[in-house]
Amino acid sequence: MDSERTIIIMKKEVKLNKPVLVVGLPGIGNVGKLVAEHLKTEFGGVKFATLYSNHFPHKVIMLKNGGIRLVSNRFYYLKSKKKGGSDIVLLIGDDQAVTPEGQYEVNSRIVDFFKDKLKGSFVYTIGGYTTGEPITGIPRVYGNATSKEVVDSFRGSKVLFGQSKGMIWGSAGLIVAFAKRSKIDGVCLMGETSFVDLDAAAAKSVLLALAERLGLTIDTKNLDQIITKTAQAIKEIEQQMTMAFPGQQGGPGAPEQHPTYIR
Amino acid sequence: MDSERTIIIMKKEVKLNKPVLVVGLPGIGNVGKLVAEHLKTEFGGVKFATLYSNHFPHKVIMLKNGGIRLVSNRFYYLKSKKKGGSDIVLLIGDDQAVTPEGQYEVNSRIVDFFKDKLKGSFVYTIGGYTTGEPITGIPRVYGNATSKEVVDSFRGSKVLFGQSKGMIWGSAGLIVAFAKRSKIDGVCLMGETSFVDLDAAAAKSVLLALAERLGLTIDTKNLDQIITKTAQAIKEIEQQMTMAFPGQQGGPGAPEQHPTYIR
Amino acid sequence: MDSERTIIIMKKEVKLNKPVLVVGLPGIGNVGKLVAEHLKTEFGGVKFATLYSNHFPHKVIMLKNGGIRLVSNRFYYLKSKKKGGSDIVLLIGDDQAVTPEGQYEVNSRIVDFFKDKLKGSFVYTIGGYTTGEPITGIPRVYGNATSKEVVDSFRGSKVLFGQSKGMIWGSAGLIVAFAKRSKIDGVCLMGETSFVDLDAAAAKSVLLALAERLGLTIDTKNLDQIITKTAQAIKEIEQQMTMAFPGQQGGPGAPEQHPTYIR
Amino acid sequence: MDSERTIIIMKKEVKLNKPVLVVGLPGIGNVGKLVAEHLKTEFGGVKFATLYSNHFPHKVIMLKNGGIRLVSNRFYYLKSKKKGGSDIVLLIGDDQAVTPEGQYEVNSRIVDFFKDKLKGSFVYTIGGYTTGEPITGIPRVYGNATSKEVVDSFRGSKVLFGQSKGMIWGSAGLIVAFAKRSKIDGVCLMGETSFVDLDAAAAKSVLLALAERLGLTIDTKNLDQIITKTAQAIKEIEQQMTMAFPGQQGGPGAPEQHPTYIR
Repeated sequence: MDSERTIIIMKKEVKLNKPVLVVGLPGIGNVGKLVAEHLKTEFGGVKFATLYSNHFPHKVIMLKNGGIRLVSNRFYYLKSKKKGGSDIVLLIGDDQAVTPEGQYEVNSRIVDFFKDKLKGSFVYTIGGYTTGEPITGIPRVYGNATSKEVVDSFRGSKVLFGQSKGMIWGSAGLIVAFAKRSKIDGVCLMGETSFVDLDAAAAKSVLLALAERLGLTIDTKNLDQIITKTAQAIKEIEQQMTMAFPGQQGGPGAPEQHPTYIR
Repeated sequence: MDSERTIIIMKKEVKLNKPVLVVGLPGIGNVGKLVAEHLKTEFGGVKFATLYSNHFPHKVIMLKNGGIRLVSNRFYYLKSKKKGGSDIVLLIGDDQAVTPEGQYEVNSRIVDFFKDKLKGSFVYTIGGYTTGEPITGIPRVYGNATSKEVVDSFRGSKVLFGQSKGMIWGSAGLIVAFAKRSKIDGVCLMGETSFVDLDAAAAKSVLLALAERLGLTIDTKNLDQIITKTAQAIKEIEQQMTMAFPGQQGGPGAPEQHPTYIR
Repeated sequence: MDSERTIIIMKKEVKLNKPVLVVGLPGIGNVGKLVAEHLKTEFGGVKFATLYSNHFPHKVIMLKNGGIRLVSNRFYYLKSKKKGGSDIVLLIGDDQAVTPEGQYEVNSRIVDFFKDKLKGSFVYTIGGYTTGEPITGIPRVYGNATSKEVVDSFRGSKVLFGQSKGMIWGSAGLIVAFAKRSKIDGVCLMGETSFVDLDAAAAKSVLLALAERLGLTIDTKNLDQIITKTAQAIKEIEQQMTMAFPGQQGGPGAPEQHPTYIR
Repeated sequence: MDSERTIIIMKKEVKLNKPVLVVGLPGIGNVGKLVAEHLKTEFGGVKFATLYSNHFPHKVIMLKNGGIRLVSNRFYYLKSKKKGGSDIVLLIGDDQAVTPEGQYEVNSRIVDFFKDKLKGSFVYTIGGYTTGEPITGIPRVYGNATSKEVVDSFRGSKVLFGQSKGMIWGSAGLIVAFAKRSKIDGVCLMGETSFVDLDAAAAKSVLLALAERLGLTIDTKNLDQIITKTAQAIKEIEQQMTMAFPGQQGGPGAPEQHPTYIR
């Protein structure tokens, strides 16, 4: 069985026009997850592929309908509303790989798939950035890009380049690095966040910056309500997944600190 | 030597009729272990294959007869008492794989073996589920299945679907997920348990549900006694294995927290 | 370079007669190390092969002569003093592999080498066994063997079979298990020990039992002095290796708890 | 994509004369880093190759110019100022591999590259050595070498051989060990240090010993200022990388204790 490596299973064949990738995997403040889920809901994302990997934590999620879901990352497309405009590919998932080797493998598969199969040419990874200081007012959006040209292309936007310090761990960083190596442009957009599990305010800032960049019209009137609802929904799911006494936490097969996997 | 991968060594050739798999590996409350051991004892399970893996903890068990046993998972068959009825294959073992990659490999070998070699078509994995609340009365049995059809097939039984939240770690979850991917039906049955090492009451609830499902006649008169005896026997073995000062705990070659491997 | 797997480099070709293997790698009480070092010194062991592995902790030992030594396990032979008698192969080393996969690989290489290259037919692994109770009088020697026949062959000796409970971690256990799988006989002899780093008393008990078994004449008059000296020498080396502020402890490349590797 | 193994990408072809390698990767006191950075700055090191590995921590560094850098090790050359003199190759980097297997792979690639591609014949690895005692006066320089001949060649210098005890973890040790196995000479030079993140005094001692050995004329007048400036610059970068609230610390994809990776 194809269970012993990283595989991407196509659910349906797609023909996308100059697609851009928006990666919203679990991470700090779950900013990426909130942004990607919002785009999926507001614009009707259609799932077309699923990535499984033996490098993901070895667990299965218990679903409300009595079924199960093996940990995975899922690809959705949003067709462009403008003639000849870029389609959007969303990557949303349950978790990230555990080891360096696993992270290198999963993220390079994602970039190879996006470039070779989907003929993509630009990647956006979404994350959170903590300055350590209290956030006053609207959270800022920080960026780090594959090249000076990409940084320059953001001139006039609210995205701040060169002000974020430190490291980007996991997919949000490696996908941009691998895109750069594959001669694809890209940027990591990070919403300023403190240590909350689901930072709706940070997600909103990034969403607005991303929408402006991609030429999307976001329904701002209800944006706050919607984001808060999405945050609550995700929080609910996450609580189920990481509650004090989840189904079969611990025991053989469970790593020592698995509650920290999903934030 | 075949020591550097996952292998299943056939002790005797078998011809099984439409077999179902019942997986009772170490886990929360050791519910699965109790259930499987009980079925093996009550119905005379015959060992026919052993699975070894370089992904299992690198230890050897000291036996009462002065011998040794390398950590393994063992397959037993129970021939159906009914003409044309499904035979049962039990999977019982000492431990589970340590890493995600190890878990993916071992569990996919198990499913491949069951499907391709034994021509099996349904898997039951047994585990424990902790709600966090004190258990009043008879422990409930929760289920998560590969499909809606399987959930529906439990209508009228006492198994509760869609009420368990969170994650299933290790073999109990992955075997069901891999069965689903291999187009085999399956379900994880979890006895409601709190944090005891060997939950005989939870095991009894699952045993009754499983017996009803499989059309087995369980000797209920002595069930409590038997289960309690089995629990004590397992507890004895486990205490030997994880006692405060076990043979050669720690030192080079022993991982930092190995006492948590067996519960 | 052959640095990325487990290799055994022959320093000199040897022709051994019906050799038996005595494994004394670091472990509880360092009983095995003391026993093997003593045999090497008393009977003039000659080094003939070295095992390196990319599964050993990634460190180098700083030598008194200003040189360095990469972590390894080393094979020595002791020619039998009796005509037609079994030669002895000693395995002594700096450390053991870190992961299950590493342990499975290194120990199966050792058994394959002993069986296929050296035509060996019996393995002794030496370790320590902690009962948790204070040791009164002469430490006992516990044994666990590959078969009933081996257990029976110890009748009349002081070695106690079937009284040790729990698990044997690492090489002391796996080498016996792999020997059994390769149709070679073997036994793990464990000296009763409490939690000291170097248990000379336990080593002496095992040494006497082993000497009787192998028909070796141990100089008992000086045995205590010699063992104590050896223990001190090993303690010195170990202290150098694990002293409070060893050369380049910690930092990138050093694992979090490496002082526990050598005991 | 070549993201799933260790690769060395040549930026420009080079022809070096009897090159010697000076390895200054992150480690205790960052002595190696300080020494190598100083040589690079003072003598104008030219980058000619970059080593990437899926065994490095899975993170990306956020740059001041708004760009990103994937964790790597980088090779620089310094052409000899003397006719026919040995060129110098510097190896400077962000981090080291995490596991034994990763360390063995990365360091053997480095030695193979240096020997086979660059035709190198001597390696210097630079590190720190902590005695545990307070350092009075000028920090000493300790050495451990591949052979007696190399030790002898340091006679008359200030480098102390045979006085350092314990272990050398990571690249500083393994590169010397692998050099020895590849029949290349080498030495690990360690500056006496206590537990500071950046020990400029230790670096100065090693720098002077190395300069004397390599026949380099170091500008001693400004050495202290320069080293202190370099230390401050590195400290700044490191603080950015490991500050209390770095960009996207923690969360899925980040290991549990990553702040300890860079010192």
